[in-house]
Amino acid sequence: MVQHFAEHAASNLAAVREKKPLIHSITNLVVMNFTANVLLAMGASPVMAHASSEVEEMVAAADGLVLNIGTLSEAWIESMLKAGKRALQQGIPIVLDPVGAGASRLRTKTAKKIISAAPMRVIRGNASEIISLHQAGSQTRGVESVHSVDEAAPAAKNLAQALKTTLAITGPEDLLTDGTRVIRVCNGHPLMGYVSGTGCAATAIIAAFLAVDDDPLRAAAGALAFLGAAGEVAAENASAPGSFMIQMIDALYAMTPEALKQKCRIYGD
Amino acid sequence: MVQHFAEHAASNLAAVREKKPLIHSITNLVVMNFTANVLLAMGASPVMAHASSEVEEMVAAADGLVLNIGTLSEAWIESMLKAGKRALQQGIPIVLDPVGAGASRLRTKTAKKIISAAPMRVIRGNASEIISLHQAGSQTRGVESVHSVDEAAPAAKNLAQALKTTLAITGPEDLLTDGTRVIRVCNGHPLMGYVSGTGCAATAIIAAFLAVDDDPLRAAAGALAFLGAAGEVAAENASAPGSFMIQMIDALYAMTPEALKQKCRIYGD
Amino acid sequence: MVQHFAEHAASNLAAVREKKPLIHSITNLVVMNFTANVLLAMGASPVMAHASSEVEEMVAAADGLVLNIGTLSEAWIESMLKAGKRALQQGIPIVLDPVGAGASRLRTKTAKKIISAAPMRVIRGNASEIISLHQAGSQTRGVESVHSVDEAAPAAKNLAQALKTTLAITGPEDLLTDGTRVIRVCNGHPLMGYVSGTGCAATAIIAAFLAVDDDPLRAAAGALAFLGAAGEVAAENASAPGSFMIQMIDALYAMTPEALKQKCRIYGD
Repeated sequence: MVQHFAEHAASNLAAVREKKPLIHSITNLVVMNFTANVLLAMGASPVMAHASSEVEEMVAAADGLVLNIGTLSEAWIESMLKAGKRALQQGIPIVLDPVGAGASRLRTKTAKKIISAAPMRVIRGNASEIISLHQAGSQTRGVESVHSVDEAAPAAKNLAQALKTTLAITGPEDLLTDGTRVIRVCNGHPLMGYVSGTGCAATAIIAAFLAVDDDPLRAAAGALAFLGAAGEVAAENASAPGSFMIQMIDALYAMTPEALKQKCRIYGD
Repeated sequence: MVQHFAEHAASNLAAVREKKPLIHSITNLVVMNFTANVLLAMGASPVMAHASSEVEEMVAAADGLVLNIGTLSEAWIESMLKAGKRALQQGIPIVLDPVGAGASRLRTKTAKKIISAAPMRVIRGNASEIISLHQAGSQTRGVESVHSVDEAAPAAKNLAQALKTTLAITGPEDLLTDGTRVIRVCNGHPLMGYVSGTGCAATAIIAAFLAVDDDPLRAAAGALAFLGAAGEVAAENASAPGSFMIQMIDALYAMTPEALKQKCRIYGD
Repeated sequence: MVQHFAEHAASNLAAVREKKPLIHSITNLVVMNFTANVLLAMGASPVMAHASSEVEEMVAAADGLVLNIGTLSEAWIESMLKAGKRALQQGIPIVLDPVGAGASRLRTKTAKKIISAAPMRVIRGNASEIISLHQAGSQTRGVESVHSVDEAAPAAKNLAQALKTTLAITGPEDLLTDGTRVIRVCNGHPLMGYVSGTGCAATAIIAAFLAVDDDPLRAAAGALAFLGAAGEVAAENASAPGSFMIQMIDALYAMTPEALKQKCRIYGD
């Protein structure tokens, strides 16, 4: 148990509620509403905009940028690259969610193009997505992983070192690495896998935590522990995915920093 | 307390449930599902279509049109202008929701272009959005207001007179004006600010009320009181935004005209 | 009561949970999130992708394809045709949801173009939509039916024979025909009409059942009975559309094959 990570998770949550960081998401059509509600519930401020002619202005006002490739089109890719470059100039954190990388060449190629355009503060994906960014030809089944988190660990470590970034692989247990340190987050509940957009929500929460914490590994670990802990609270009140989803939003809103600190299960490797 | 406004709110709600007006929304990607569910719950009939080649036919069958600029693209702007012109020919009410006007030039410019293409029956926005339509260079933080409703009151009054329309500024208290009369609606609950798309839902409800009432100020005030009252009912059963959002939909469905009349808190200025 | 249909509904549900078929949906912007959550809750695996350059790869991995025309654009139509042709080569089932066919020429024409590009395993729509596919000039009010299921029965039978497909008309009672057999499904609850995307969810569930059953009529009837039965369970716990929607997702997750068999109300004509 890495106690100082739990303490930082708690203080980051408090800081998000204090600062209300504006998180600009260029994200997929399936999860937009859920992502916006998750950010609002936790105390951040969401904005979504994808028109090429306005993304730079939106980034200029934002405290963090999420680029999520879950439903691509040519125009959106252009906007993501433009937004990424502007975020780099601004010095605000960018988080990439390579949804479905490995499931189509377009997705794998676009994820890599985004990474080349600007350094990502964190890349969060499932095991198959992370492997596909590292190893040509590796495949993902739609947007679902066919690999375990541990199978993706070497790819994550190599990518983290090569790209000087932090990788967060989510699954039944999450594994995070900045190329040097390796951290596991064991919060969560199986019903999270039955709610569309849980992974994308994790990415957005990471962006909000990055807006208040300079250490990407620590911020991302705390963010995943927070979402996982909200899932645990939700499971106390719900036994099926519809009510669980609603309870999870409620828990993100209601959880105090102190409660988060108690619930965090973040371990060194 | 403007008693006849409360009475009209009640009779408008009854009329919506009787007539089931078809509300065509060209709205943003984040709130589409929530908006559709809000319109269905209250007894109206939603349709969404944005293809340039079909918007005119959709408008031809509609009883009201919502134009919401929350996630723009060039193609959608063209469709909004086309739909607006057709609605003008049809004589059906158009409501503009200038989401994020002031946050990017594209949004401010597009809102103004829509207003020029056809007269809006009502324009509903937060304080910063309304100010940005009136005063060049005024800014909005993403889609959140940085001004108070009272700060936006002069802009609203000027715009209402210049454009011969009704302005509805929503916030902790709502302020509406048709350039002559000024009305405040005090219904609502702070949790509404934690649910994505509450403002957009207000706009859609206004459109449904306009479909059954020729007085825009009265229709809009009643619509905002209705949504606010639903929020108050929801807050009796929920203390966090996930369940609150669901309870608000339930309340929009379950509220009787009589209950709405009792709950309305609509005041002259 | 067609007992063997009820038995197949139950075994199909069990098979979906065992196989977890990957259902690729090119669907409308309003219902994407709800559709994904419905597929996840029932035990299937959703993926959504619409970029012309990736839809074929997504279809290549999929066990079923949903084409839903609820919010069209030129680019999406091209992708639907491409996806349909690839699904035909793959031999995986395609289900068409002609949302709003009859409400605009674009929709009616697009539905027919999709049908010409590849044989549909099932076409599911409301009565007006089905009639519009058969009879030039027939109209739909937005996305709502203005005809009864029985009025659409002759059109459905003719279309089924002409196109060698299965038609499923949904309404208060559902009517299904493969041109020879005619089946009615009497499960469901009036509150389903107050939830956006219930029809689209029905289409997605049909696709999941088709992925495990070679008899389209039987698969579609069981799928509709399943959704209707979930609506009945939801109505035991909810009396308004917000909570009802959540309870319906819960019921799709929690319903056992045995419970489904008991609840099925599938009748021969």
